[in-house]
Amino acid sequence: MTEVFSARLVGDAVELLDQTLLPDRVEIVTCRDDDTLAEAIASLRVRGAPAIGIAAAFGIAAAVVRAASSGAPVEPAARRAAATLRPVRPTAVNLAWACDRMLARLDELEPGSDVIAALREEAEVIASEDRDACAAMGANGADLLRELAGGPLRVLTHCNTGALCTAGIGTAFGVVRTLHERGELAHLWVDETRPLLQGARLTAWEAANLAVPHAVLVDAAAASVFRRGDVDAVVVGADRIAANGDVANKIGTYGLAVLAAHHDVPFVVVAPTSTIDTATPRGATIAVEERGADEVRAVRGAVVVAADSPAHNPAFDVTPAELVTAIVTERGVTRPSGSRSVAGVFHSP
Amino acid sequence: MTEVFSARLVGDAVELLDQTLLPDRVEIVTCRDDDTLAEAIASLRVRGAPAIGIAAAFGIAAAVVRAASSGAPVEPAARRAAATLRPVRPTAVNLAWACDRMLARLDELEPGSDVIAALREEAEVIASEDRDACAAMGANGADLLRELAGGPLRVLTHCNTGALCTAGIGTAFGVVRTLHERGELAHLWVDETRPLLQGARLTAWEAANLAVPHAVLVDAAAASVFRRGDVDAVVVGADRIAANGDVANKIGTYGLAVLAAHHDVPFVVVAPTSTIDTATPRGATIAVEERGADEVRAVRGAVVVAADSPAHNPAFDVTPAELVTAIVTERGVTRPSGSRSVAGVFHSP
Repeated sequence: MTEVFSARLVGDAVELLDQTLLPDRVEIVTCRDDDTLAEAIASLRVRGAPAIGIAAAFGIAAAVVRAASSGAPVEPAARRAAATLRPVRPTAVNLAWACDRMLARLDELEPGSDVIAALREEAEVIASEDRDACAAMGANGADLLRELAGGPLRVLTHCNTGALCTAGIGTAFGVVRTLHERGELAHLWVDETRPLLQGARLTAWEAANLAVPHAVLVDAAAASVFRRGDVDAVVVGADRIAANGDVANKIGTYGLAVLAAHHDVPFVVVAPTSTIDTATPRGATIAVEERGADEVRAVRGAVVVAADSPAHNPAFDVTPAELVTAIVTERGVTRPSGSRSVAGVFHSP
Repeated sequence: MTEVFSARLVGDAVELLDQTLLPDRVEIVTCRDDDTLAEAIASLRVRGAPAIGIAAAFGIAAAVVRAASSGAPVEPAARRAAATLRPVRPTAVNLAWACDRMLARLDELEPGSDVIAALREEAEVIASEDRDACAAMGANGADLLRELAGGPLRVLTHCNTGALCTAGIGTAFGVVRTLHERGELAHLWVDETRPLLQGARLTAWEAANLAVPHAVLVDAAAASVFRRGDVDAVVVGADRIAANGDVANKIGTYGLAVLAAHHDVPFVVVAPTSTIDTATPRGATIAVEERGADEVRAVRGAVVVAADSPAHNPAFDVTPAELVTAIVTERGVTRPSGSRSVAGVFHSP
């Protein structure tokens, strides 16, 4: 079994499992300076909102270790690393949040404190909090699915939500893994997840590595699997959850929610409470990012659409709360269609 | 504008537009012997049920022309060509049907008849009947869509159903083209149609060639386009229609039918009456062909799934009659949900 991880601190460097090379090659990128790590985040060698925050936190800790060993002042090194990493991917809130948290820790330190130990600890705490949240989501989700759908379950998932994008077992994939470890998973259907194929390339690789019984299918084949009665539950992650329970997630999620409702199959979203955005009242107010046409036009370098055909490439879609059976977080489970406000459940004083 | 065609008889040869090279290269394959044509059909250089029947009919006519010019007996040449071509793709009924029709014409000939002229004529009649059927379907479908959804229309389609797979303007794509020529088409959404990408590679190319306003999208993005209210009708072809109106078609069709119903958008199937199989009472009795995992595992040669992950690759799915708003044929329009039997409408004595 390959050790699967997103980012880790090793001495004065950050190690990443290069996700752009998977599944063809399993290679570790060692980032020994701020710019190398910034490039790795920008080019998606590490991806997934929790993972890039953790990578940045480790990057700031590594920068102070390097500064100390070369006799340079450590505080400016930390601030320089944060300034380099923070703006690399502006849309993922976790990146800025992790950098800010590291700098806040720095600001709180008493004069004469061990800056290296403090920042190394803070980064490890950020990672371990994420690891704990994943474990809690896994248990909460597996409990819920047993209650909703019995077992052993045939689960369908979309995109990649596993160890590669968190510090732990993942969000939706963590639920699948927990079911598998409990002996309650019969089969995992893995949507390939065009255009970037995170399901085919990453989730299937994680599943194979854990001996989770699975099969990859093209996104358009999911409907026929529902129709055959071979899906007991859909489990997906979330990029952002509006206060009313509407869920923004990878393109293709909404179609699965419609299919799940049509076939009376539970549709479960798994995401940490930090994903719930109380400033967003409902999904309709979320701007959907339109990404470059080349993601549709070419697949891993192979051109499939002629240059004179336009392509439409929305990065995510919004699933209305009424199609969501339940939202699983590290703090518990909520059913958006049964409550007026998801935010109210988890952000009560 | 490139001349788009599936197969044509030129002297003693059959010319095909090589669909395996599109959209990168527009190349004509000239088949001057039975084996070259058989290989072209087997390797999908020509594809689409009507087109491969027409290609085979031309192939038999070409074989007798070649035999005559070399002084060989023509009848055995025709029978040899039919025997070579008929079994190449056993599932498409049109191939066997076209070969049998050519041989039946041969059998009916009076002694002393001009065999070459008769077989050339029969092949051209097969092609022209298909061309006429396409034109009639185009007009019937465009009339129906104006009635159902008004105009100008935003139409979504799947797979390739155009000139490349018929002798005429196509089936579903023929309806789109007719709408465009009438000034009643606002936009065409082209599903890329994984795994073999017939939408991205072929339909988008046909649309661009005709200046039809269009955009390619990954199959999983269709749902979000429905949700935005940007689809007025779905128009697809059919591989086989059961007597009760259930429709077997390219994988992904059923999911579109569910989405169309959920968003109250007409879902229209366009196919010649020869597609209606009275021997198949309902869709559940149609065996769904499972194709090779490599179609999912690799895209135009680029590997996207690790070798130790299985892939599920059903070639088509079955849409139940109750999700089909109407079936458009060359003989008229039927609404399967409003009638007990589609077959009864068209196969009445």
